[in-house]
Amino acid sequence: MKAAYIKKTGPPEAIEYGDLPDPVAGPGQVLIRCEAVAVNPIDTYIRSGTIAMDLPQPFIVGCDLAGTVVEVGEGVSGLRTGDRVWSTNQGLLGRQGTFAELAAVDADWVYPTPDGVESTTAAACALVGVTAHLGLSRVKLRAGEKLLVIGGTGGVGSMVVQAAKALGAQVIATAGSDEKCQRAEALGADYTINYHTDSIAEETKKLAPEGIHVLWETRREPDFDLAVDVLAHRGRMVLMAGREARPEFPVGPFYVNELSVHGVVMFKATPDQMRTAADDINDWLTDEKLQPHIGRVMKLSEAAEAHRLQEQATLQGENCLSGKIVLEI
Amino acid sequence: MKAAYIKKTGPPEAIEYGDLPDPVAGPGQVLIRCEAVAVNPIDTYIRSGTIAMDLPQPFIVGCDLAGTVVEVGEGVSGLRTGDRVWSTNQGLLGRQGTFAELAAVDADWVYPTPDGVESTTAAACALVGVTAHLGLSRVKLRAGEKLLVIGGTGGVGSMVVQAAKALGAQVIATAGSDEKCQRAEALGADYTINYHTDSIAEETKKLAPEGIHVLWETRREPDFDLAVDVLAHRGRMVLMAGREARPEFPVGPFYVNELSVHGVVMFKATPDQMRTAADDINDWLTDEKLQPHIGRVMKLSEAAEAHRLQEQATLQGENCLSGKIVLEI
Repeated sequence: MKAAYIKKTGPPEAIEYGDLPDPVAGPGQVLIRCEAVAVNPIDTYIRSGTIAMDLPQPFIVGCDLAGTVVEVGEGVSGLRTGDRVWSTNQGLLGRQGTFAELAAVDADWVYPTPDGVESTTAAACALVGVTAHLGLSRVKLRAGEKLLVIGGTGGVGSMVVQAAKALGAQVIATAGSDEKCQRAEALGADYTINYHTDSIAEETKKLAPEGIHVLWETRREPDFDLAVDVLAHRGRMVLMAGREARPEFPVGPFYVNELSVHGVVMFKATPDQMRTAADDINDWLTDEKLQPHIGRVMKLSEAAEAHRLQEQATLQGENCLSGKIVLEI
Repeated sequence: MKAAYIKKTGPPEAIEYGDLPDPVAGPGQVLIRCEAVAVNPIDTYIRSGTIAMDLPQPFIVGCDLAGTVVEVGEGVSGLRTGDRVWSTNQGLLGRQGTFAELAAVDADWVYPTPDGVESTTAAACALVGVTAHLGLSRVKLRAGEKLLVIGGTGGVGSMVVQAAKALGAQVIATAGSDEKCQRAEALGADYTINYHTDSIAEETKKLAPEGIHVLWETRREPDFDLAVDVLAHRGRMVLMAGREARPEFPVGPFYVNELSVHGVVMFKATPDQMRTAADDINDWLTDEKLQPHIGRVMKLSEAAEAHRLQEQATLQGENCLSGKIVLEI
């Protein structure tokens, strides 16, 4: 089969595209013919070695996939050859990745793709949709609460906007241009703040004078002063990015208002937590409450270039590619 | 009645000792003849104006009391003249304080003093015991979990050690001398670390190689690097001090390990939350699972000196008075 893989960690050019032996479905696994895979920032951290993990040799990059089951391993129930499925959380913690024509995946991590949902859509919603769901579950977002998401058109941010709306929350989203604000509104945001022209804190306080209940931070430099400024008593903040960041933390206003901060990362989730998230995501996809923002569709052979583009977007933000990069296979 | 009060915020000498009109039990209140009151760091912040709150004029200082009901207001059920009771959360958010011969307190905030428990004991356990209970409830400490408390012989710290043991946790406590380590062990700590002679992080990792579940920080400069170093996956940290602190926050290891930080402050608790805490505290006092460490017993007329001693202990830590200051009336 064709695959995009590395022999050792390094820059995007470390990714080779070529032939690897076809995998087989081991016990408890299904073999999936991949039709679409999506790129996530974590793919680039694993590939570069920034996140050190034990990697199979060679290591096929990528966490997300959508495709069709072509072989069912021993002991698997509930999945059959021909089923359209999606998966995420692969290529992590020693598991082989997804950027290949075929992937053998533990059935635990495989979810049905709803009828009428394209594989590119399912792949593009996988890691980011599950991350949004895990984070909102973690802070127990309730219907009627107010949520502020910083970066409401980004990969995870756009999923948070839609998932929070699906859960009945009121959503304020920030974005870096009027055009992106319009996109956030199209995704369902009740209010948007253009952070280039307006103060997030001031506008949020106008929109939610009693404070917001959940702040979802996506930036690589999380802003705890903003958090203590806009959160209501017992407000919760989600942290899911900023590997190198060491911002100052305003302890006094934080504890006096009984705030909490919760770190969330998909790859620590259990199969059960993932399936709960996937079930809701499938419902939302079916009801058209969730749609990915796909910025670029490329080919599997362009995986190295896709990683370069993803790194640029992660590092330089809004002046680059916006939206998910999906590779068709 | 005699009372210790201020006419305006200021240094300890702003506290006057003299006669004020006797209060009466309004609707929903009881009038309590105070037998003992305790000093807490927050008392000094309110007196100095560091925490700005609306204050009655004149303002009687103090949050905690224990004494006997001498009058029952209209509409109060469950409390009778002659009942021995304790209370906390007074002198806050516009409520009058407790450092007086008589205090009119909403029955919502009044709890029975168990038989055999002295008023000095009840007063000394009030705010600190409730704070420990609220924090441990907030992070849902479970039996069998490992808790590390920084400052295990301090006002709140010594309550955390005992409450965590009563809840079935394993407790590691730090203290600043071998003598204090012995005191923490006498309170029930399974292990102690003398932070003057040993590294908290290294010793904790030896004692809990899989990581600890709850870190209770009591210092005025909370240490988030220690937190990410010693907490297990999904470990929780309690923050309850450090009004002026702005330490650096290591975002990457925090979110990758899905940690959480929870701010806790007693004066934001509802009467229901307080009563749940008070019920458990009364059970623990009855079963002798909870004992205060009283460092000094003084007279109500010495309130200003008591504030001076408390400030010294808060600011300079272990070289000063250790243990609660209780005033007898």
